[in-house]
Amino acid sequence: MKLVVAVVQDQDSNRLSSALTKNDFRATKLASTGGFLRSGNTTFLIGTDERLVPQLLDLIRDNCRSRDQLVAPVSPMGGNADSYIPYPVEVEVGGATVFVLPIEKFHHF
Amino acid sequence: MKLVVAVVQDQDSNRLSSALTKNDFRATKLASTGGFLRSGNTTFLIGTDERLVPQLLDLIRDNCRSRDQLVAPVSPMGGNADSYIPYPVEVEVGGATVFVLPIEKFHHF
Amino acid sequence: MKLVVAVVQDQDSNRLSSALTKNDFRATKLASTGGFLRSGNTTFLIGTDERLVPQLLDLIRDNCRSRDQLVAPVSPMGGNADSYIPYPVEVEVGGATVFVLPIEKFHHF
Ligand code: NI
Ligand code: NI
Ligand code: NI
Repeated sequence: MKLVVAVVQDQDSNRLSSALTKNDFRATKLASTGGFLRSGNTTFLIGTDERLVPQLLDLIRDNCRSRDQLVAPVSPMGGNADSYIPYPVEVEVGGATVFVLPIEKFHHF
Repeated sequence: MKLVVAVVQDQDSNRLSSALTKNDFRATKLASTGGFLRSGNTTFLIGTDERLVPQLLDLIRDNCRSRDQLVAPVSPMGGNADSYIPYPVEVEVGGATVFVLPIEKFHHF
Repeated sequence: MKLVVAVVQDQDSNRLSSALTKNDFRATKLASTGGFLRSGNTTFLIGTDERLVPQLLDLIRDNCRSRDQLVAPVSPMGGNADSYIPYPVEVEVGGATVFVLPIEKFHHF
C-alpha cells in the first residue's frame, strides 16, 4: 500500500474526482491554499496498492496537467485603465504536485 | 514515532476526539470530504510512539466502527411523495480508514 | 525528497508563510484545529530536498517557537466580575509540531 498525496488546482479538482471514482480509486479531499500551486487548491489523499500507482499517476497527469489557456480580457472596473489589456492573454493553469508515501500499516474498520 | 492518519465520519469525530484526549493522544483535525467514506468526514493526524499504535488503533475502531443504524423515515417536503419510505431503514454508518506512516524525525518547538 | 508536515498556531502562520517564500520553500496550507496545539492552527505540507531539511526546521523554529507573551486584561463583559484579572497575564503562545516523512516518489505535472 502507498499513500498518494496530490495537490491539485481547484479548477481540475472535480474532473480528477470523477476520473478517480470511475477507476475505483477512493480519495479523501481537503481544501488547501497556496504554495505549490496558485492559491485555491485541493489536497487529495489516496490509498492504493503499489502496483496501481502508475495508473493513478497517469490519471492525475491526464486530468491536471499544467497547460496554457487563453483568458479573455476583463474590462477595467472603476480602476486603472492603464492596466487594461484589450486582447486575450495566455496564462498557465493546472498542474499537480504529487508525493508517494510508504505506508507501514493500513486498516479499515 | 509513527504518524497515524485516520479518516473518520463526522458523526464519530467528536467521540473519537474525546477518547483520544482522555488517553493522552494529541491529534490535529482537518475537515475533509468524500472518497474513502461518505462525504462529511474528518482527517485526524496523530503522532505517537510505535508501542502505542495498537492502543490507538483500538480507540479508533471502538469509536468509529462501521455499523448498521435504523434511520427514522423523513416525511417528504414539497417533494416526490413516491420516494417516501414510511418505516425506519437500516443504513451503514461510521467506519474509519487508517494509514500508519513512518516518521524519520519528529520535532516540537 | 522529504515531506515536512508542520502544525503551526494561526498567529504564526502568515509570518512562517512569508519566511518560506523568501527562502524558496513552497508550502501547501490546510486549516486545522485542536490537539497538538491550542485550537486554530494551520498544517503546512512542504516538499523539500533532504539536504534542505535543517534549514527548513530552523525557519519553522525561528518563526513559531513557543514563548510567553503578556496579554492585557480584558474587562468582563456582562459576565462574572469575580474572574476579572486587572493586570497583564503571561500566557504561552506559538509552538510547532513537525513531522519529517520519507517520500518514495515525487512528481510535478
Ligand atoms: Ni508547477
Ligand atoms: Ni468502509
Ligand atoms: Ni507544545
